Amino acid sequence: MASLKDKAAIAGIGATEFSKNSGRSELQLATESVTAALADAGLKPSDVDGISTYTMDNNGELDVFRAIGGRDLKFFARAHYGGGGACAPIMLGAMAVATGQAKVVVCYRAMNERSEYRFGAPIQMSVPTTENALWHYMLIHGAQTAAAYIAMCMRRYMHETGTTTDAFAEVAMSARFHANTNPNAFFYNRPLTMDDYLASRMIADPFRKLDCCQESDGSVAVVIVSAEHARNLRQKPAMIRAAAQGAPVGTGNFTQVFRGDITPFVETNLVARQLYETSGLGPKDIQASIFYDHFGPTVLPSLEAFGFCKRGEAKDFIKNGNIRVGGAMPVNMNGGQTGEAYIHGMNGIAEAVRQIRGTAVNQVKGVHNIAVTAGSCVPTSGLILGAA
Amino acid sequence: MASLKDKAAIAGIGATEFSKNSGRSELQLATESVTAALADAGLKPSDVDGISTYTMDNNGELDVFRAIGGRDLKFFARAHYGGGGACAPIMLGAMAVATGQAKVVVCYRAMNERSEYRFGAPIQMSVPTTENALWHYMLIHGAQTAAAYIAMCMRRYMHETGTTTDAFAEVAMSARFHANTNPNAFFYNRPLTMDDYLASRMIADPFRKLDCCQESDGSVAVVIVSAEHARNLRQKPAMIRAAAQGAPVGTGNFTQVFRGDITPFVETNLVARQLYETSGLGPKDIQASIFYDHFGPTVLPSLEAFGFCKRGEAKDFIKNGNIRVGGAMPVNMNGGQTGEAYIHGMNGIAEAVRQIRGTAVNQVKGVHNIAVTAGSCVPTSGLILGAA
Repeated sequence: MASLKDKAAIAGIGATEFSKNSGRSELQLATESVTAALADAGLKPSDVDGISTYTMDNNGELDVFRAIGGRDLKFFARAHYGGGGACAPIMLGAMAVATGQAKVVVCYRAMNERSEYRFGAPIQMSVPTTENALWHYMLIHGAQTAAAYIAMCMRRYMHETGTTTDAFAEVAMSARFHANTNPNAFFYNRPLTMDDYLASRMIADPFRKLDCCQESDGSVAVVIVSAEHARNLRQKPAMIRAAAQGAPVGTGNFTQVFRGDITPFVETNLVARQLYETSGLGPKDIQASIFYDHFGPTVLPSLEAFGFCKRGEAKDFIKNGNIRVGGAMPVNMNGGQTGEAYIHGMNGIAEAVRQIRGTAVNQVKGVHNIAVTAGSCVPTSGLILGAA
Repeated sequence: MASLKDKAAIAGIGATEFSKNSGRSELQLATESVTAALADAGLKPSDVDGISTYTMDNNGELDVFRAIGGRDLKFFARAHYGGGGACAPIMLGAMAVATGQAKVVVCYRAMNERSEYRFGAPIQMSVPTTENALWHYMLIHGAQTAAAYIAMCMRRYMHETGTTTDAFAEVAMSARFHANTNPNAFFYNRPLTMDDYLASRMIADPFRKLDCCQESDGSVAVVIVSAEHARNLRQKPAMIRAAAQGAPVGTGNFTQVFRGDITPFVETNLVARQLYETSGLGPKDIQASIFYDHFGPTVLPSLEAFGFCKRGEAKDFIKNGNIRVGGAMPVNMNGGQTGEAYIHGMNGIAEAVRQIRGTAVNQVKGVHNIAVTAGSCVPTSGLILGAA
């Protein structure tokens, strides 16, 4: 049976600072993070022969390749659907390495998402393509932001599971707890209390401002090579145990209008199921998780999707510091995208690699396998990374 | 050594009619071609678990998947750089199948490229991204169309190799010779003489109108499964012997301004070299070719890139009907994108599959291996398909 399991590894990670105004171009950001990731791996720009990124990245593969000083580019591919594709460039890189199409693939995401444009602003659709038709349908009904779309799913989730604001607050405070000790995080050393959380203004009921990820400038890159190659490089490899994408019937791009039930996070469920199936692992084999927190409360159904607790029980599972370092299932030890920065999921992947290496600022003890997700309520993707 | 060789096969092909005004949406076109390709393979929509296409396709993977009646989508990826990516979706599908990430991948390209927009019109860049910066540089100097960019390369090629208008005319007449007997071709039963060719108005010197591909509405899709799976399906499989992408240092997106020499078609050369290396085949093993003819004369350096003749000798090689059916190296037996239709390279891939099956209207005898290219003077891609 053909499989990606442990065929490839992440051998290098790199990033710019995370900020609200980088003061330089997205190409510059991408170049810096890719160059840093190569240095981290102990590889040269001329070693790179593959690139994968998001369809939403504004930097052409060629432009980044030229800027880093590449020679022969032999593989380049992109994953669609924004943050839902966050883990997919890593999957594509692993596939390229596993099939001999490339030897060294860099994956990057670079964006001036705060200083040049804002994903939190109402969506405007200028081009009347087939793909945009569904957006138009939502926009004319007043659903104009990602927050508005996912708020509907999470409000329904609250209704069905009895989850309350307390659980949302605990997710926010747990992420902030981790961010407080992460010097690279926007919310470094800025504690969050329950009173602060409750005072946070409502953005799209039930999401308060502090449930929403940040808007950030910055770039993160990773380097993917074969498992064998990785063992001979500078860093402890983060093996790609499994990688998957998922978009079951009825999936929309934020627009879950084709389903009778908008709550079950079926995209994330499908990805989790594939990750377990293809890796041969189960929930008990995972020591920590990076759950994509465009909106912090989606951590709750993510815990359920990966089987760390049963459906509807996440609100109880997270109590007693269980999703903080030292708890039963630490989540987003970098502070997540609410606490560290929003680099469209790529900064979470870098944190997962640090956890496998044992070099994270909020290090979970004995991480042998870590689950990573991408955006929920969209066509999504996921990874299990592990120690060699 | 990891390799894609013969791991996957094209098991089905489908297309809409090719026209100047389809009268329906691009989503409808994509759905029709994908549905036809699945029927051709003897597969059901619910069998599909992967999709790959071009970044330029306006149809979201989800929308096509929903429209055909798909169930669980587990792989979706895109290749950038327009027609240069033409063979890349097939490569991505083969990689997905070879690594177990998907079992049935459909690749599509659907466009109302004549009735809704025209690639032949001057390029307009509304979004000032890093990726568009280089376009702006070209646009302000008056280079506003693909024809204008590649005309510069081919004028220089003429200068360096002594190639004349006669050779351009022979390429055009050969494609038309094939189109004349292809009922699906726009130029079906419409012969082209040398006088017609010379009377064709200049678009971008040295390209005449009849050197330029058509502008077309339509869609083509193919279905990719594992080699083993393909053997149990309805059609004779077109094995994917090799697939490659290529963008050597200095490659631009039509904009070869980073090189001292704009003529060598180094992208196509790199792809050809990889295809031969990874398949273990050479020029003598290939019985026919599909060369991407956004501009017919680029067939000449393509023949050289694949080693069917030496550098600069294509002008002589093509004489005596050598690139027509019955000749030494038949090219574009469907009439190519100048003669049949311009579906961004995807219609050529379908023709290559028919040649392997032995079902083409202009069938080359004994096709065991066929080379396929994508757009030249851009980051490009290629395939060698072969009989099982």
